[in-house]
Amino acid sequence: MGQPGQVPPPSRQLTDFEARVYEYYSAMGCGLQSNIINSETWTVDFNRSQVLLESATEGPPARVTYRFTVTPDMTNRLGTLHGGCAATLIDTLSTCILEGVSKPGIFSLGGVTRNLKLTYLRPVPLSSEARLICEVVHVGRRLALLKAEIRKVDNGDLCVVGEHEKANTDPQTAQKI
Amino acid sequence: MGQPGQVPPPSRQLTDFEARVYEYYSAMGCGLQSNIINSETWTVDFNRSQVLLESATEGPPARVTYRFTVTPDMTNRLGTLHGGCAATLIDTLSTCILEGVSKPGIFSLGGVTRNLKLTYLRPVPLSSEARLICEVVHVGRRLALLKAEIRKVDNGDLCVVGEHEKANTDPQTAQKI
Amino acid sequence: MGQPGQVPPPSRQLTDFEARVYEYYSAMGCGLQSNIINSETWTVDFNRSQVLLESATEGPPARVTYRFTVTPDMTNRLGTLHGGCAATLIDTLSTCILEGVSKPGIFSLGGVTRNLKLTYLRPVPLSSEARLICEVVHVGRRLALLKAEIRKVDNGDLCVVGEHEKANTDPQTAQKI
Amino acid sequence: MGQPGQVPPPSRQLTDFEARVYEYYSAMGCGLQSNIINSETWTVDFNRSQVLLESATEGPPARVTYRFTVTPDMTNRLGTLHGGCAATLIDTLSTCILEGVSKPGIFSLGGVTRNLKLTYLRPVPLSSEARLICEVVHVGRRLALLKAEIRKVDNGDLCVVGEHEKANTDPQTAQKI
Repeated sequence: MGQPGQVPPPSRQLTDFEARVYEYYSAMGCGLQSNIINSETWTVDFNRSQVLLESATEGPPARVTYRFTVTPDMTNRLGTLHGGCAATLIDTLSTCILEGVSKPGIFSLGGVTRNLKLTYLRPVPLSSEARLICEVVHVGRRLALLKAEIRKVDNGDLCVVGEHEKANTDPQTAQKI
Repeated sequence: MGQPGQVPPPSRQLTDFEARVYEYYSAMGCGLQSNIINSETWTVDFNRSQVLLESATEGPPARVTYRFTVTPDMTNRLGTLHGGCAATLIDTLSTCILEGVSKPGIFSLGGVTRNLKLTYLRPVPLSSEARLICEVVHVGRRLALLKAEIRKVDNGDLCVVGEHEKANTDPQTAQKI
Repeated sequence: MGQPGQVPPPSRQLTDFEARVYEYYSAMGCGLQSNIINSETWTVDFNRSQVLLESATEGPPARVTYRFTVTPDMTNRLGTLHGGCAATLIDTLSTCILEGVSKPGIFSLGGVTRNLKLTYLRPVPLSSEARLICEVVHVGRRLALLKAEIRKVDNGDLCVVGEHEKANTDPQTAQKI
Repeated sequence: MGQPGQVPPPSRQLTDFEARVYEYYSAMGCGLQSNIINSETWTVDFNRSQVLLESATEGPPARVTYRFTVTPDMTNRLGTLHGGCAATLIDTLSTCILEGVSKPGIFSLGGVTRNLKLTYLRPVPLSSEARLICEVVHVGRRLALLKAEIRKVDNGDLCVVGEHEKANTDPQTAQKI
């Protein structure tokens, strides 16, 4: 409680969409309900960089925004957000929104990444605050397309544009429910 | 010396291309000549995963291959190579080859990433050995296109396809040399 | 005059942005001021498919929308908009908006395409009306990023998502003006 | 017979792979067995530009090469191969190779394009001869990845790099055969 990066669930009743996004976000290691701690996997240190779930709106378009601070462990030798770290953030956090819009048989397991594409427009400097905005573009039976943006909080400058395409891995029997 | 992942430079005389690739590879934290140790930046733990520079041929096409082992810190919750880790490996290691073919004014500073695109075809399981093959597709005055593949060593299966586009950041005055 | 697909310039005073977009659009073979007729180049038959410039707002973000009808010459063997035709529409028409935001030395010559990426989400059937929405994402000194969407007019369904990256070709001396 | 761009099937016995590629290629409007003539769809004028099926090897990797001449109807206002025409060539002709490696239930209907990505490295001038090389990267149950290159014949320069991802559309019942 009160620890950096840990966000208690809102006291009001969450919508189904919000609850699912929050559940997945917590499973990433953030928030009070965090259920994986210190597991040794490839990840951003969500607590250190204080990744906060800022908003989740069901839409359409479904949109989730996060805020974070660029900490030294996220940077490259130029002292700016590393391209691989931006890729990891977008890969991981855009999946939360897909969970939020999933249905039985359609991405309820989160799917697997097929394509990840990033365009780096401007550097995000060390210690700066940034906002990651994820949006659902299209969810089909087999593939889903998500997009993401990383912007600087102070001036709103667009720094990274991402596109994330996931393949559904729910069992086919479930698809017929 | 003799520590895992540290590769001494070959005893024979290196070509100019090989020497440049090896220098950049060492600067990543690998090899005996490693000149950044424990710097706190976003990176794969090259020593733990034993990233080895396997071969460097000037071509054309210029090609560099690396071998590594998928360690727990590189995996996702499914126990396979994390998409963001694959992105980081390709971002970082394909730059070595670009250094190898650089000229004064043309990517001698390594450039900055403009686009990074990954297609994930098959999972790379924990503890498996993998090969990363990087190749120069085209180097222009302003942009360079690199491609990369991650294959399993045991059966040669292609697992990840990457495309890396970098923008030249050498000062313009240098370009006129 | 009054022929299908020919749009007279609005009677009101155009903004500088609107005038530039309209000028480039006319140069594509549309509109009363069309200055290339029957030139034998690769193109959509803009008059037959009645490509209309619907709106142009300077923003940011700068956005231009077009409407068109899917005619037989635009289709594949399945009777839907051909992927190569969608690519041609986006390549050609997103350039108009780039002209609209150009400055001396920065894309005043329209630039050349470096990357074109299309994702096809749903078919656009023969005879249906569609809307093409082009938007400027970022214009730098060397590269510009544009995005585009093709939607069905009747239900607003998103059918094609495009990303168009252009390289500046204005002479460098001009860049110093 | 003997008309430009019409290629009789080789007199020797074709392999199953070659026969399938040739059949699909003919269906595009090329070759003596061409079975769609003058159908009004979006297409390159294969006869005018003399698109020739040059070779087809089953591999792996499966590879098909074509040759063609850049005719005026394929060019942009700069007098070089139009980006939309290159996209159309790659979309259409890379599908032939996918037909060649199809099985019942797996892309026997040719699939539909999900993603098409092009990188333009160098212009291909009017009247020049070019070679299009298509290769199968990976064929899965749901998605297939193809790549393509356009090179100038005279000096071998790489001009366009393409990536084509198709989704399988064979009926699911067929997939269980």
